[in-house]
Amino acid sequence: MISFESDYDNGVQPEILKRFVETNSEKTSGYGFDAFCTSAKEKIKKACGLEQAEIFFLIGGTQTNATVIDGLCAGYEGVIAAQTAHISVHESGAVEASGHKVLNIPSNGSKLQAEEIDHYMKNFLADETYEHMVQPRMVYITMPTELGDIYTRQELADIYEVCRKHHLYLYIDGARLGYGLMSQKCDFDLPYLASHCDVFYIGGTKVGAMFGEAVVFTNMRAPRYFFTHVKRHGALLAKGRMLGIQFDTLFTNNLYFKISKHAINCAEELKEVFARHGIKMGVDSPTNQQFVILTKSQKEHLMKYIAFEIWEPIDDKHLLCRFVTSWATTKEDIEGLDKALSQL
Amino acid sequence: MISFESDYDNGVQPEILKRFVETNSEKTSGYGFDAFCTSAKEKIKKACGLEQAEIFFLIGGTQTNATVIDGLCAGYEGVIAAQTAHISVHESGAVEASGHKVLNIPSNGSKLQAEEIDHYMKNFLADETYEHMVQPRMVYITMPTELGDIYTRQELADIYEVCRKHHLYLYIDGARLGYGLMSQKCDFDLPYLASHCDVFYIGGTKVGAMFGEAVVFTNMRAPRYFFTHVKRHGALLAKGRMLGIQFDTLFTNNLYFKISKHAINCAEELKEVFARHGIKMGVDSPTNQQFVILTKSQKEHLMKYIAFEIWEPIDDKHLLCRFVTSWATTKEDIEGLDKALSQL
Amino acid sequence: MISFESDYDNGVQPEILKRFVETNSEKTSGYGFDAFCTSAKEKIKKACGLEQAEIFFLIGGTQTNATVIDGLCAGYEGVIAAQTAHISVHESGAVEASGHKVLNIPSNGSKLQAEEIDHYMKNFLADETYEHMVQPRMVYITMPTELGDIYTRQELADIYEVCRKHHLYLYIDGARLGYGLMSQKCDFDLPYLASHCDVFYIGGTKVGAMFGEAVVFTNMRAPRYFFTHVKRHGALLAKGRMLGIQFDTLFTNNLYFKISKHAINCAEELKEVFARHGIKMGVDSPTNQQFVILTKSQKEHLMKYIAFEIWEPIDDKHLLCRFVTSWATTKEDIEGLDKALSQL
Amino acid sequence: MISFESDYDNGVQPEILKRFVETNSEKTSGYGFDAFCTSAKEKIKKACGLEQAEIFFLIGGTQTNATVIDGLCAGYEGVIAAQTAHISVHESGAVEASGHKVLNIPSNGSKLQAEEIDHYMKNFLADETYEHMVQPRMVYITMPTELGDIYTRQELADIYEVCRKHHLYLYIDGARLGYGLMSQKCDFDLPYLASHCDVFYIGGTKVGAMFGEAVVFTNMRAPRYFFTHVKRHGALLAKGRMLGIQFDTLFTNNLYFKISKHAINCAEELKEVFARHGIKMGVDSPTNQQFVILTKSQKEHLMKYIAFEIWEPIDDKHLLCRFVTSWATTKEDIEGLDKALSQL
Repeated sequence: MISFESDYDNGVQPEILKRFVETNSEKTSGYGFDAFCTSAKEKIKKACGLEQAEIFFLIGGTQTNATVIDGLCAGYEGVIAAQTAHISVHESGAVEASGHKVLNIPSNGSKLQAEEIDHYMKNFLADETYEHMVQPRMVYITMPTELGDIYTRQELADIYEVCRKHHLYLYIDGARLGYGLMSQKCDFDLPYLASHCDVFYIGGTKVGAMFGEAVVFTNMRAPRYFFTHVKRHGALLAKGRMLGIQFDTLFTNNLYFKISKHAINCAEELKEVFARHGIKMGVDSPTNQQFVILTKSQKEHLMKYIAFEIWEPIDDKHLLCRFVTSWATTKEDIEGLDKALSQL
Repeated sequence: MISFESDYDNGVQPEILKRFVETNSEKTSGYGFDAFCTSAKEKIKKACGLEQAEIFFLIGGTQTNATVIDGLCAGYEGVIAAQTAHISVHESGAVEASGHKVLNIPSNGSKLQAEEIDHYMKNFLADETYEHMVQPRMVYITMPTELGDIYTRQELADIYEVCRKHHLYLYIDGARLGYGLMSQKCDFDLPYLASHCDVFYIGGTKVGAMFGEAVVFTNMRAPRYFFTHVKRHGALLAKGRMLGIQFDTLFTNNLYFKISKHAINCAEELKEVFARHGIKMGVDSPTNQQFVILTKSQKEHLMKYIAFEIWEPIDDKHLLCRFVTSWATTKEDIEGLDKALSQL
Repeated sequence: MISFESDYDNGVQPEILKRFVETNSEKTSGYGFDAFCTSAKEKIKKACGLEQAEIFFLIGGTQTNATVIDGLCAGYEGVIAAQTAHISVHESGAVEASGHKVLNIPSNGSKLQAEEIDHYMKNFLADETYEHMVQPRMVYITMPTELGDIYTRQELADIYEVCRKHHLYLYIDGARLGYGLMSQKCDFDLPYLASHCDVFYIGGTKVGAMFGEAVVFTNMRAPRYFFTHVKRHGALLAKGRMLGIQFDTLFTNNLYFKISKHAINCAEELKEVFARHGIKMGVDSPTNQQFVILTKSQKEHLMKYIAFEIWEPIDDKHLLCRFVTSWATTKEDIEGLDKALSQL
Repeated sequence: MISFESDYDNGVQPEILKRFVETNSEKTSGYGFDAFCTSAKEKIKKACGLEQAEIFFLIGGTQTNATVIDGLCAGYEGVIAAQTAHISVHESGAVEASGHKVLNIPSNGSKLQAEEIDHYMKNFLADETYEHMVQPRMVYITMPTELGDIYTRQELADIYEVCRKHHLYLYIDGARLGYGLMSQKCDFDLPYLASHCDVFYIGGTKVGAMFGEAVVFTNMRAPRYFFTHVKRHGALLAKGRMLGIQFDTLFTNNLYFKISKHAINCAEELKEVFARHGIKMGVDSPTNQQFVILTKSQKEHLMKYIAFEIWEPIDDKHLLCRFVTSWATTKEDIEGLDKALSQL
């Protein structure tokens, strides 16, 4: 069946698979002490325009968020995030599991804005009892957000400035980073992002890899003994080279960006297809996740031919539904959707 | 200086002090294995109209909340609370410190309502991804609330019914329980409360004791090895009898309720005094915490003679200020306030 | 270079790689809700001779230990383990990270014995202050152990009996389970093991997989919401089918056991080679890890041609060195070692 | 009944009780922001010969250990302690509760020695896999130890030197500090101790107070936001002045040392009494805890008249029993014991 269910419903990008096959009989040391990881790190630093960065490869997104936040925050310190953020809702309390509170800022849309953070901090510091409260230490944003939105060059600069003003780390969750940077609406590139935060991760799982996220500590060294800390979080892969091979391949010949661009192109085509059939968008998303409004009967019909996700009910008759493209989306997939929509 | 700063700015209620003096040279076993604790527990059970309850004496409120919540919830389980609740804001992340997420329901005022909880749970269960989320396991309410409000007989019954429907424990933080039950507006008594929740605590620190909170597990036995759990939380007092003596005294001859009633009477007089001087209430509180609206210059003047707390700014010119009565408030305190207000 | 450094220094077993390639373009749901996982679980149940087991696929060993222990033990409960056990030494405190104490029993060799556990529990219960201590709730053993040793049929039965007597879960870490079961000295099989413990895991990472460990809850259902618990531990793989494909392949046509047997055969040949060259064994290991005593100069020489690990210094002149075979060990590897030894 | 059961089986030292009574009707701010706490801190600094120390008052010993260790160690860092240490055995896993491993050094007797620590650290650093292990960050010793033993001037200096060499904090648990310093065998004073460690606490609960321990950070400032950290651990007393009053009194006119000296004198008399009756000491203790060897029938007889604790069985016929003196021990208590021993 044709699927727009998620960007992790497929296998691994074929170039990476090829490299797995080619290198399979080699023997290397474990835990990331291998030439593939070394090479991948160098390529990522170059792509980020950073010389001093420290890079660690972890396995999945929730794990990465929990490990990075716990690595940079003391127990009594919390992380500011939007109410809709992944760490606020969909990580089963992985951040709290190591003792940190997620401090929610109610937000229009899925983005945080600099002034909201500034307002939050001013209120916090004005409170005479602030020493009885969790101390904010980090701001967590996602690029793109849970709803596919992206930050602008100016917004990111403003947020980072506010963070520095209040001694907050800025951490960017880039689970779908490639799809954000390749959006037609994105007005900045990877080096710009890398120079406007303290730590971020380049998502592999949703952008071509079988698994893996590359954590980049930008303008500072990683926390002491971060290797030990990663192991303590159960996030250290024994056959670490598999992460190295994947990111080395993704950052060779711009593969990471090429496949992201492909997904964006497919998403734009998707928009056109929906528009042609009179289906309205529920959210204006410039990235690879498209949210459309379907009636329940439309949904019933489409689900016979196409896999996609029901995001949330809108009212008694309408549903917000998510269609996701990826590096693996094909012309046939889109044609299939077009055809299924024709039969509505 | 006259103080309405808090209900824990004084020493210990004189009857208790007297008992400390009388019993000081006795020797008893530690950790609560003494006759005072045994007697106090019996009296509390009786006052609650419960035969089967299990009772534990802990030292302070934040500690008690963290210990009870961690004792009843697994790591992946969270506790539903109002955004203004003490555990949500003013406990330095003590609940998260043992890994539990506080699940906030935005709420008008400081009370949670049964329908809000029901709505929250229905939305939660309707979410296809709910297994990726923290599982709600407990509802936390305070009686009275952070803003001095109280639940009605009907509200409490409705909340408990919703909790049972959704397999949620109902836990009532009674840091100021006496002041709530003795409010003129309260339409239920201690046995009613005790039969409409799974666990609650009777606050000592703010109601006459030097320190101490009595946790009551009502319709069930306490969690296994709760004693060990309490010790692990650093909440076990070596000279446990000091807790026994305090609660034994408080629950002899209705002392707990008498001194609470005194505070309520003082609070009602306070309201009259403020009204007489044209000072408006910012919150309608039927308990021992009164929140009044003062201009900045009024505040400046009053603070020369009277200690009280600035709760929060209202606008550029006005502040919400808190005046708290307790068992220790005297006629002279109120007259002093009256006099200070006359000079405005 | 020839390597006997570890059993995770290679890629993935070729049959599995082939299946990765064959299935790469399919689309499936994430998080383990796919047909590969379902099939793998059925095959594992069959191989274990269990009908009622519940099976979860996690990514790595440390992660699995932390997740299982935290899933079955309350905070105040601890896990009994040998002082040399992996969780006691080499997991960066991952078990303590979720609040559980590892209770060490000093042990001759690397195995725990039933009478040691019984003795420990009797002493514990005889201590009048035991309620002030961490409550033992689980026994953790490894099969094979850190030093390659294996339990006998009788030892395992005795341990399980003692566990049940004292209401302790028995958890077997099977990171190298295949190599243990295929040892010439092993007098039991997988169904026997599965019927003599409460939970165990079948190691993939060290036995042919790219990554992955299969947790089997045997005579009981898994803890409630174990899926959520796994996610909270950062142990849930988004592209869960990759775990399914690996274990499905490993448990088709006895592949898991065949490749394990191959490693054991290679280890036995290794022993002969060392004996032929007068190199003594430092530990009597019946599994795929062989520990030999080398002089420092022997070590220097060999390391030019062969990768292996220095386990620990024995005295000023001698070192205990580890040589590990796996499914990937070849005839050429062993001949190469033979040749290198000839030149000593 | 006469009791030598513990040094916390009594009330509060009469001078302190008197101060409670005298100050009871005063009103002060909460949480330690009061003049009593300020004064107490100044007196303690003076008694320690420290100008720069930072002092915090907590409630109990287990709580203090957990809070201090968690305040100074990152999650992946552990604390070195003797196997018999209080944190190793009798705190229900309170240290592990915030994620830290207790790293046990097997030790003759109850004291750690500098060379044992040095040996441990050398082995640790020599291990090629040390980055996979919990990083030692602190050494925990008690003065006096669980078995009443004390460190010498030289031993303490040596331990502190080894700690600084290996970048380990030295933390001294002084739950019974007064009894240690006043021992006839102690060859150093409080300022010497305070200048030979990074942090220690002065035990109140077992030395005259109703409750309370004074944490002293010596040659450094306390960790950032230690107040918030203390609250997060549930260790912040609302009526903080009660701690101030107690320590202010204890450090006025050397009361802390006088009452400790009294207990030591009583313990020396106890030794003489036991010797006179042919009862042998099981442990050579120079402090207020005396461990004697009783036959089971001796124990039975004595327990009719005297409360004391059975420490542990020695063999089928003999028990190690503990008799503890304190500031509250009277001449009559000792005469009563003498008389009871006469009847054996």
